[in-house]
Amino acid sequence: MAACDDAVVSSPPSTPTAGRPRSGTRRLPAATAREEILDAAAELFAQRGYTATSTRLIAEAVGIRQASLYYHFANKEQILAELLEATVRPSLAYAGELSRKDLTAAVALRELVKYDVGVLLGARWNIGVLYALPEIATEPFTHFRRERERLRLAYRRLAAAAASDRIGDPDVAGDLVFGLVESVIGMRRDLPVLSSAEQLQRTVAAAALRLLGADDDRSDDPA
Amino acid sequence: MAACDDAVVSSPPSTPTAGRPRSGTRRLPAATAREEILDAAAELFAQRGYTATSTRLIAEAVGIRQASLYYHFANKEQILAELLEATVRPSLAYAGELSRKDLTAAVALRELVKYDVGVLLGARWNIGVLYALPEIATEPFTHFRRERERLRLAYRRLAAAAASDRIGDPDVAGDLVFGLVESVIGMRRDLPVLSSAEQLQRTVAAAALRLLGADDDRSDDPA
Repeated sequence: MAACDDAVVSSPPSTPTAGRPRSGTRRLPAATAREEILDAAAELFAQRGYTATSTRLIAEAVGIRQASLYYHFANKEQILAELLEATVRPSLAYAGELSRKDLTAAVALRELVKYDVGVLLGARWNIGVLYALPEIATEPFTHFRRERERLRLAYRRLAAAAASDRIGDPDVAGDLVFGLVESVIGMRRDLPVLSSAEQLQRTVAAAALRLLGADDDRSDDPA
Repeated sequence: MAACDDAVVSSPPSTPTAGRPRSGTRRLPAATAREEILDAAAELFAQRGYTATSTRLIAEAVGIRQASLYYHFANKEQILAELLEATVRPSLAYAGELSRKDLTAAVALRELVKYDVGVLLGARWNIGVLYALPEIATEPFTHFRRERERLRLAYRRLAAAAASDRIGDPDVAGDLVFGLVESVIGMRRDLPVLSSAEQLQRTVAAAALRLLGADDDRSDDPA
C-alpha cells in the first residue's frame, strides 16, 4: 500500500520553490512548495474549516508569501479541488487496472475496497470530511464530482457482478458498498483510536462482500 | 415511521411567536417560531454552509427580527446543537425502547437501522452533512457528541450480539453498521434520485445484517 502514502501529494516532485525562500522550517522534508501548500491547506481546511481558512493563512503556515502561493494555485477553490481529486484519483486508476486483469468481480471488489480504504486512511489529513462542504456543488468542483461519480459507478458495476441474486437493486447495493468504504472517513474523524490501516482494509473489504452476499473465498485472496 | 417526520422539530408545539409579528409568509404552517427558526437555519446551514450563515440571515429567512431569534436561542451554536441533537435523539430513544422488548439482537438491530435511516431521510433538510464541521469538536457540541457516541454504543452492543462468530472485532463491526446507516446522508447529498425512504430503510437493514453474517430471518420481521 505504498502508493497510498502520496494520496494527497499527487504531482511529481519537480518544480522548485517559486518566489522568495521560505522563512520557517519545512513542513515536509523533500517536498516541493506545491506539495507543502497542499499539505498546509489540507490541515487548515480539515481542522479550522474551509470558509475560515484564507490563502494568507495557508501561505503563513507554509512560510511563504501569498504571491508565491498564487504562483502555484489561482485561488483557494483550486487548492481544495486538487485535494479532493487526490482522494479519488488513485482509486479510480486502480479500478481501471483491476478491470484489465482477469479477476472475478468479488476478488476485484475486495481489492478495490482495500485500496480505497488505504487511500482514505493513508492521507496525512482526513480530507474526506470536506466532501460535505456545500461549496462542492459549485462549478470549480465539477471535475472532482465527476471523478467521484466514476468511482461510484466502478463500485456499482463490481457490486452488481459480485452480488448474490437475493440482493435487491444492484445500484443501491453498490452505493452501500461505496458508503461503507467512505465510512472510514467518519471513523477517522470520530474515534480516538483506530485499528491499523491494514486491518481496517481487510475488515471493510470482507464486510462489503458479506453485505453483497458474495462468496468471500479466502483462497483467492492474493494478499 | 410517522415519528420521523418531526425529527428536526422536536419541541412540542406550544409557545406562540415572541416579539413582533412576522412580515413574510410562514415557512411551515402550524409551526412555532422556534420550529421555523430551526427549519430556516437547517436549510441555510446545509445549503450555504454554517460559517457563511449568520443569525441575521436566519432571522430574515423566517421573517422575524434578530431580537426575536435571540428570545429562542442564545447564539448560532445553540441552533446547530439543537439541529444535530434532533438527528440522534429519536433513534437513541428508540434503541432504549427496543432494549426493553424481548427481541433477538438481530431483530432489534434491524428495527433500529430501519428507524434511524428513517430519521436521517425524514428530516426536511439533510442535517447529517453538518457532522463533518470542525466546529463539532468544540464545547457547545459536547452533548451532541456524547449522544451520538451513545447511539454508536447501542449499535456496537447489538452488532456484537447479532454477529456471527466469524466476524472479527465486534466493535469495528458495530462501527461499520453505524457508518452504513449514516451513508444515507451521503446518498441523499450526492444522488439526484433516491429509492423511497421505506425501501432504503429495508435495504440498509438487510445489508447491515448480512454484513454481520447474522441470520436475516424474514419471518420475524414485524413490518
